[in-house]
Amino acid sequence: MAPTLLAGGTIVDVLADRLERADVFMEDGVIRLVGTINPDALPEGAEVIDVTGKVLCPGFIDGHIHIESTLMVPRELARVCAAHGTAAMVADPHEIANVAGADGLRYMLETSRDLPVDIFFALPSCVPATPFDESGATLTAADLKPFYARPEVVALGEVMNVPGVLNGDADLLHKIADAKAAGRVVNGHAPGVLDDDLRRYIDAGVNDDHECSTFEEAHQRIEAGMWVMIREGSAARNLEALLPLFDAGYNRRCLLVTDDKHADDLLADGHIDAIIRAAIRMGADPLVAIRMRTIQAARCFNLENLGAIAPGFAAHVVAVDDLEDFRISAVWHAGEAVQVQLDAPNDFVNEPLPEAIHPADPELERTVRHTFNMDLLSADDFVVNPDGRKRAACHVIVVHPGTLITDDTVRELDFAETNGTAPELDVAKIAVCERHHRTGHIGLGFISGLGLRHGAVASSVSHDSHNLIVVGTDEDDMALAANTVLVMGGGRAVASGGHLLATMGLPIAGLMSDLC
Amino acid sequence: MAPTLLAGGTIVDVLADRLERADVFMEDGVIRLVGTINPDALPEGAEVIDVTGKVLCPGFIDGHIHIESTLMVPRELARVCAAHGTAAMVADPHEIANVAGADGLRYMLETSRDLPVDIFFALPSCVPATPFDESGATLTAADLKPFYARPEVVALGEVMNVPGVLNGDADLLHKIADAKAAGRVVNGHAPGVLDDDLRRYIDAGVNDDHECSTFEEAHQRIEAGMWVMIREGSAARNLEALLPLFDAGYNRRCLLVTDDKHADDLLADGHIDAIIRAAIRMGADPLVAIRMRTIQAARCFNLENLGAIAPGFAAHVVAVDDLEDFRISAVWHAGEAVQVQLDAPNDFVNEPLPEAIHPADPELERTVRHTFNMDLLSADDFVVNPDGRKRAACHVIVVHPGTLITDDTVRELDFAETNGTAPELDVAKIAVCERHHRTGHIGLGFISGLGLRHGAVASSVSHDSHNLIVVGTDEDDMALAANTVLVMGGGRAVASGGHLLATMGLPIAGLMSDLC
Repeated sequence: MAPTLLAGGTIVDVLADRLERADVFMEDGVIRLVGTINPDALPEGAEVIDVTGKVLCPGFIDGHIHIESTLMVPRELARVCAAHGTAAMVADPHEIANVAGADGLRYMLETSRDLPVDIFFALPSCVPATPFDESGATLTAADLKPFYARPEVVALGEVMNVPGVLNGDADLLHKIADAKAAGRVVNGHAPGVLDDDLRRYIDAGVNDDHECSTFEEAHQRIEAGMWVMIREGSAARNLEALLPLFDAGYNRRCLLVTDDKHADDLLADGHIDAIIRAAIRMGADPLVAIRMRTIQAARCFNLENLGAIAPGFAAHVVAVDDLEDFRISAVWHAGEAVQVQLDAPNDFVNEPLPEAIHPADPELERTVRHTFNMDLLSADDFVVNPDGRKRAACHVIVVHPGTLITDDTVRELDFAETNGTAPELDVAKIAVCERHHRTGHIGLGFISGLGLRHGAVASSVSHDSHNLIVVGTDEDDMALAANTVLVMGGGRAVASGGHLLATMGLPIAGLMSDLC
Repeated sequence: MAPTLLAGGTIVDVLADRLERADVFMEDGVIRLVGTINPDALPEGAEVIDVTGKVLCPGFIDGHIHIESTLMVPRELARVCAAHGTAAMVADPHEIANVAGADGLRYMLETSRDLPVDIFFALPSCVPATPFDESGATLTAADLKPFYARPEVVALGEVMNVPGVLNGDADLLHKIADAKAAGRVVNGHAPGVLDDDLRRYIDAGVNDDHECSTFEEAHQRIEAGMWVMIREGSAARNLEALLPLFDAGYNRRCLLVTDDKHADDLLADGHIDAIIRAAIRMGADPLVAIRMRTIQAARCFNLENLGAIAPGFAAHVVAVDDLEDFRISAVWHAGEAVQVQLDAPNDFVNEPLPEAIHPADPELERTVRHTFNMDLLSADDFVVNPDGRKRAACHVIVVHPGTLITDDTVRELDFAETNGTAPELDVAKIAVCERHHRTGHIGLGFISGLGLRHGAVASSVSHDSHNLIVVGTDEDDMALAANTVLVMGGGRAVASGGHLLATMGLPIAGLMSDLC
């Protein structure tokens, strides 16, 4: 790649918190000079790109993302995000680890190198996430420790087992100690934890939290020295409630992160750029939003040389049209053009990346592609037998559409005509089928609020153990949808009236697709 | 339904072989009067439809069709064909019988009643079709005999086991004797059989043949007293070669039939009407073509009261614009309007029929929907082991595209890099997986001429035993495609690179879809 001069732009100087007219000279992936630069003094062969009128930001950093939740393998996610200005991300491979253990971690590390986004890792601290489900693997402190030898591992991932910390779970404390001994940070996950419990949680060594949904939670954390990651993803959206954190007293201890962002939202909306646009629309100071998405994310994880346009920093630069609409017109990663559409901002071109930049070792690839260990299901597996009664009072999970909240009710269900399902009352059946160890375990129940009128939907994405989950009004369709996911080695399937209506294969650990 | 007068048309009088200006009065599903009819003399409430300028033909009859080959259940096939003027068909449920035996026959009989096409049946005489494959069922003479109690059973279906007839196979001769004793006709299937063998075949009691592809074959059969069914379907097209049969010396012993006609051709092209159009385009006399498709088909099967517009015949009438383009503008079945588009001929409207005119008994429905009895396959099941050699000379099936002809060649194949497949040389792998009796039998071989460059295609439609057949260049994709067909309970699936690209469910015996 030729040395490149970006001439005539205005840089966002996140170190000094100001805008500045400056040319930027990049060479060998690094920013060499920032200021007024005479093109005649450049090395021979240097390319000069006129960015007059554009605002240049440091490449964006996502401090907390689960790559698996995008449904894309790292290569494909990097392709999509790079065009949106994402320069780096810290990924917690919690989902694949719950399915495939250390092999899952290795797969993610091996396939995340040399992409147009720098992918760092936080090691999943809670595998399994709960003793009440059956996961594919268990990762102890001893299993995790060797991974700190890899420089791209920058943290121990979200410590969601708060009771474990507070009650002194030996293996969990061991994991935290190992991370700190290796000079890595420890990410938190403590929704609703306040006061004394919060202080003890922080004292254990936890660095940050991305689960704040109220200002009070965030306020207590920042006061106690934690970083707060303001989350705005597909499933959970906390930006609006946490807007007060953009005020001067707080904003220097805050980041903006996505956590879980689905492929369709990424394509329709964008990645980190979308959050900055949303914050600006809500009235946030663009310079603060950019700072939270760049240098502060780098500092939270001790990522030196990332997050600023300054000599010696990695040459990750995003050109936007202005700080109001924040439309992206060009992106450079390590000095290389990822996206240059200076006359057509936000008109993203996503060229496929080379098929195999760093493919996984074939044995490892085979392992993560064959994570289903179960027998075919039949309609009979989904039959509930209430001791031969024709009607029975049953617990029903109640879903509140548009939220993550569920609760419980008891309803009198019919077992004479139907096997408990009642589409006209919006009561469907739900089953979780263990898929990791061929136990044949199937958890059966009833669920309301999905609006399912006929057929069945099955998915191998079912947090956090990712067993095979299926909802339906008909046992034959439940078997068809579930078995289709099984033979695909993971994914989602919709069936009705004995016919498959739609399928989406997620063959990598039952979580991700490698299609581009 | 109101009594109806079709006024002002010209009828095709297939009994007298002429066109005649005549009104037609239909009542209670039967043609009552043909001639010049005074509307004032009609019963009260009679409907008068002006068909001035139209030519009225008797409803068309298909003397030989395998409903399963259309991929549609009888109800859906009747819906599509009725609009094209088909009034009746003689179906040979050979395919479903090879999968589900007598239950398959019962399913077809039960679900074929009271549709807008009269569906008659020929009992499949050769289940299994060959001892070299493994079918789902065996039907002996004793199994078939009770079905002659049903009036809609009009024949013993194509006796394709010609050696069995010539060598006096006891059970087969028993089947023929039972059919004749019950007053039913015996359909033939004897491609290439001539001279003495033909005479002995006919002497055994065979009524007709639909497998003639040369004039000489047809000539010998007609001379010896057989009916000849001129076949023009999706797979086999004999119309052009047999056009001389439209001459006066032969045409009164000929029918036009489809045999196998696929759903896409039916929708794009039409059913029997398409063959009449094709024959007219090739220069055949329209009156002869219509006669072959109506009264002669009825006479071949002794179907009284079908095939003519005359008093006492069933009120099956097709109105066409003229005898050149033969575009259909209206259809009545049993006096009821199926399709009336007098101003927009060939603009077919296919309204869905009531979901369940005569649904099968639930137990029977369940039986024909669960015909797969096999375990999941894995990539290893498709690995060929040539005694550890790295290269080996193997027989390869050679397909000649666009024909039904295959032959055999021997090629040196590589087993070091690939497991014998060579997409660049158009050599793929083919497997037939037994699916009826959980034997685990898998026949493996190589095939050339399909043009398959990657991935795999699997199908449960694989004549005549309909085991699970799969071709592919990659063993993982072969397993994915085959397993998808398995969990769908039948159908077709295409996979590549570990992903399902397309599926089509055929859950009824792995042969038909009930979707409309």
